Amino acid sequence: MVYPTQAIINEVGPRDGLQNEKTPIPAALKIELIERLAAAGLTSIEATSFVSPRWVPQLADGAEVLAGVPRRPGLRYTALVPNLKGFEAARAAGADEVAVFVAASESFSRKNTNCSIAEALERCAPVLAAAAEAGMPVRGYISCIAGCPFEGEVSPARVGRLAGELHAMGCHQISLGDTIGVGTPRQIRAAIKAAAVHVPVERLIGHYHDTYGMALANVHASLEMGVFRFDSSVAGLGGCPYAPGATGNVATEDLAYLMRGLGIETGINMNKLVAVARWISAKIDRPAQSALALAWREQG
Amino acid sequence: MVYPTQAIINEVGPRDGLQNEKTPIPAALKIELIERLAAAGLTSIEATSFVSPRWVPQLADGAEVLAGVPRRPGLRYTALVPNLKGFEAARAAGADEVAVFVAASESFSRKNTNCSIAEALERCAPVLAAAAEAGMPVRGYISCIAGCPFEGEVSPARVGRLAGELHAMGCHQISLGDTIGVGTPRQIRAAIKAAAVHVPVERLIGHYHDTYGMALANVHASLEMGVFRFDSSVAGLGGCPYAPGATGNVATEDLAYLMRGLGIETGINMNKLVAVARWISAKIDRPAQSALALAWREQG
Repeated sequence: MVYPTQAIINEVGPRDGLQNEKTPIPAALKIELIERLAAAGLTSIEATSFVSPRWVPQLADGAEVLAGVPRRPGLRYTALVPNLKGFEAARAAGADEVAVFVAASESFSRKNTNCSIAEALERCAPVLAAAAEAGMPVRGYISCIAGCPFEGEVSPARVGRLAGELHAMGCHQISLGDTIGVGTPRQIRAAIKAAAVHVPVERLIGHYHDTYGMALANVHASLEMGVFRFDSSVAGLGGCPYAPGATGNVATEDLAYLMRGLGIETGINMNKLVAVARWISAKIDRPAQSALALAWREQG
Repeated sequence: MVYPTQAIINEVGPRDGLQNEKTPIPAALKIELIERLAAAGLTSIEATSFVSPRWVPQLADGAEVLAGVPRRPGLRYTALVPNLKGFEAARAAGADEVAVFVAASESFSRKNTNCSIAEALERCAPVLAAAAEAGMPVRGYISCIAGCPFEGEVSPARVGRLAGELHAMGCHQISLGDTIGVGTPRQIRAAIKAAAVHVPVERLIGHYHDTYGMALANVHASLEMGVFRFDSSVAGLGGCPYAPGATGNVATEDLAYLMRGLGIETGINMNKLVAVARWISAKIDRPAQSALALAWREQG
């Protein structure tokens, strides 16, 4: 097994991690989180979303956050947008990239966004057109790639077709999300294989939640398929604190430890990253959902 | 990737998991734990050790435990033994298999057993001779196969040589233990590769602790090398509750979920196994160290 020399870690904690937090988090704290993540070596950070505040009140301050984050060459911010209005807001706020989203399950699509998968794709089209006009890259998220809470196992072929459609519509990268964390390497590989029929594998992103403890096994299996881009969330932020077991994205520090052990460069300073995980967990009064936050001892 | 059709899971919770618990656990509770594990489909259970009670007071009741556990065809009990005296006690108590142990790190060997690696191997010899005489199989444990708390990374070649020596001495299976959980698939594979030079791969056992969250990635990487035997501990029992991050073996229920997802038969009933994990965690008043104990919902 030859591993890639480098992996790209997209930090999604400030958006995917915080969006379900019930307690309002001040914009200043979000900005400080992003500053600390950047100081730890993260260069691709999903900072916020521009979704209706009725849906996601926690991220209603997206413009304020993007106005306050550090800016320097090589440091890029993504914002999730549901529609053209969201895109325009993200662009005005200075996002470097936007992300659109569809689900690989009809039931999840209806419950989460009140539309069919085909309608969700249609909603992406104007965003992609406007982004192309503006010269802004667009990432496409596909959720429920391994399983759906309402439908059970999801067909890899459907994931593959959706990835192909998003790519054909102009998404430069496609994030394959095991939203409920039920997937094991068999399913994850099937989804990647199906997506790679339509999309160059170097444009695929693994986005795995750790609800069933499978995320790092899935990451490793993805590396073996040639995927070297992964989404993760510092301290494993995400999920709902009131739903037992609804854990968040795989923790960035656990992912970074795996990469370090495999000799894959990420640009991350482990001491600093684990310190960020411990700091934000204390700030929002939740135990960090990562092994490293407990186990890591500072190294010289 | 073609997975094996079947995996053998050795439940080590009653021994490796409980040995460091400070609060005395009555033999009756240990027996009930083993009964419940057997009812959940585990068929290979490390029930206790016959080490001096001065070293491991928690397991001083090994004979009482083995006298009380259910006996039926296909259900086998292992006992860890440090020497001939321990072997005789284990045999008298009705163990089906005994396990001997050495470390792959000189410093760990000295700290843990007050002898060099070579001396530890010499201590195994009379046990193996007596077991051969008695027709009893002996498993060999090698600890610190990926890293040592005192020496850092451990040479795979040394792990391989030790595995070969234990096998040549008569151990029918060799358990490769990442005792402190620092290993990633790169190191685990190197250790397996080195061991497989001397020992048929079907006689190797993966024994991974989840301290850094790497255990299931390591299990999956091991499956890819042809290993299909794994040690695990229900509820992730083990480690020291007073040392942050010192988690135990990978949880049996998380391992079983991975196997199920990969289509690999283990004979385990998931509902029953998760119930055992929740039950023992409540009994010893510790949070279960597994994803499944939180996430699993009973399935019909």
